[in-house]
Amino acid sequence: MVKVEIIGVEGFPIVEAGDDVASLILEAVRAQGLSIEEGDVIVVSHIIVSRAEGRTVDLRKVRPSKVAENIASFTKKDPRLVEVILRDSRAIRRMGPRLLITETRQGFVCANCGVDKSNVPGEDVVALLPEDPDASARRIKERICSLTGKEVAVIICDTHGRAHRMGEVNVAIGLHGLSAIRDRRGERDLFGYRLRVKQTAIADELASAAELVIGQADEGIPVAIIRGYHYPRSETSTAKDLVRPRERDLFL
Amino acid sequence: MVKVEIIGVEGFPIVEAGDDVASLILEAVRAQGLSIEEGDVIVVSHIIVSRAEGRTVDLRKVRPSKVAENIASFTKKDPRLVEVILRDSRAIRRMGPRLLITETRQGFVCANCGVDKSNVPGEDVVALLPEDPDASARRIKERICSLTGKEVAVIICDTHGRAHRMGEVNVAIGLHGLSAIRDRRGERDLFGYRLRVKQTAIADELASAAELVIGQADEGIPVAIIRGYHYPRSETSTAKDLVRPRERDLFL
Repeated sequence: MVKVEIIGVEGFPIVEAGDDVASLILEAVRAQGLSIEEGDVIVVSHIIVSRAEGRTVDLRKVRPSKVAENIASFTKKDPRLVEVILRDSRAIRRMGPRLLITETRQGFVCANCGVDKSNVPGEDVVALLPEDPDASARRIKERICSLTGKEVAVIICDTHGRAHRMGEVNVAIGLHGLSAIRDRRGERDLFGYRLRVKQTAIADELASAAELVIGQADEGIPVAIIRGYHYPRSETSTAKDLVRPRERDLFL
Repeated sequence: MVKVEIIGVEGFPIVEAGDDVASLILEAVRAQGLSIEEGDVIVVSHIIVSRAEGRTVDLRKVRPSKVAENIASFTKKDPRLVEVILRDSRAIRRMGPRLLITETRQGFVCANCGVDKSNVPGEDVVALLPEDPDASARRIKERICSLTGKEVAVIICDTHGRAHRMGEVNVAIGLHGLSAIRDRRGERDLFGYRLRVKQTAIADELASAAELVIGQADEGIPVAIIRGYHYPRSETSTAKDLVRPRERDLFL
């Protein structure tokens, strides 16, 4: 039987700057009476990685630039928040009242450059995306492998809005140990027809699957284990493989 | 423990026009020694629904119009295929060599209006999307409920390319029995902060999760059962709730 399991990692402590995310994951997994298995995909909500990496900003200490103040007045956002967003963005894609869609340094297009107020302790504290989410995924993956002796893959995820479709979905913003895209061109279908266009963004599908257990703010599940999915292993693939360059974006 | 299972429904027969998809699903599920349970989400690849509804076209019987011939010469596609695509589209969004992105009658933006050559028997036969995927989902859902006495939700899925991101992911193009979007605005996070922007496209996340077992052309798994996910029930939500109207699409 083909079966994939998505298991929520519960009982996670409040993550603080300097924490070792891999060890926290393993402790929480053990406390649930579980263990990491060979081939698991471990999907980690970016917010705990950002907090562990000290990627939080106290807005009371931010002095907005004139540019930020100008954009804040147009977007009706907190100028200090706009300042933090702009510092982390490589392009502004769209602005409007209560709306600021930017391109992150990694190339992801999302609201507020991924800067997040939720699940961050402190009245005026916001969390940025991890500095280099692929590097974060790699560190967590290597540490889990070395502590458990099991070969796993790690995905760091965030929820993004989308063109053409309403609502947000969880996507991969960093990864290590698996190929972001499964290239199925050349495979044959049920009737022997050779597939011509089929490159599945499996890292995004895994991130979305993980949110079926992560997406419960009140239950505090920041990590999911996906078990039973046979992913293509890779040492070189990163979440940048998921970025469609603007000049080649035919869906815009 | 929070756990969601995704189970592939195997041993599916070749679906033909006039087949009762709900009964075929139940037979295949029983043959695997399983049964449908209360609260299951049943994700069905659109291709078997299209075939059951007779939504296939033999290209040898299609006479392309002048418009189709013109577009075919620009896109380097089969003029008969272009004719079929255009008949089903309500707008062309983008054209180029080997590329024709249209808006389906339901409002979905995707390549070739969802017209598919793979997993369709016959050299020159292509499959269109179901006429009304939400109505198809409703029929399948109601029939499964009446045959099993279990309350379930049904999603009909297709793989779509995306703006901003490489690769295709599975999304919901028809649904019944659940809310396409889980509105989490007003919920509180771990630290009591009230979420302001959070509308999760759970039907798309469920479709993507399902592809972790469906996405194996060679194994012929056209249906997945997702078990253990507590979705918001709805009698009125449809996949049209997932269509972002072009004039309000801030991610373009």
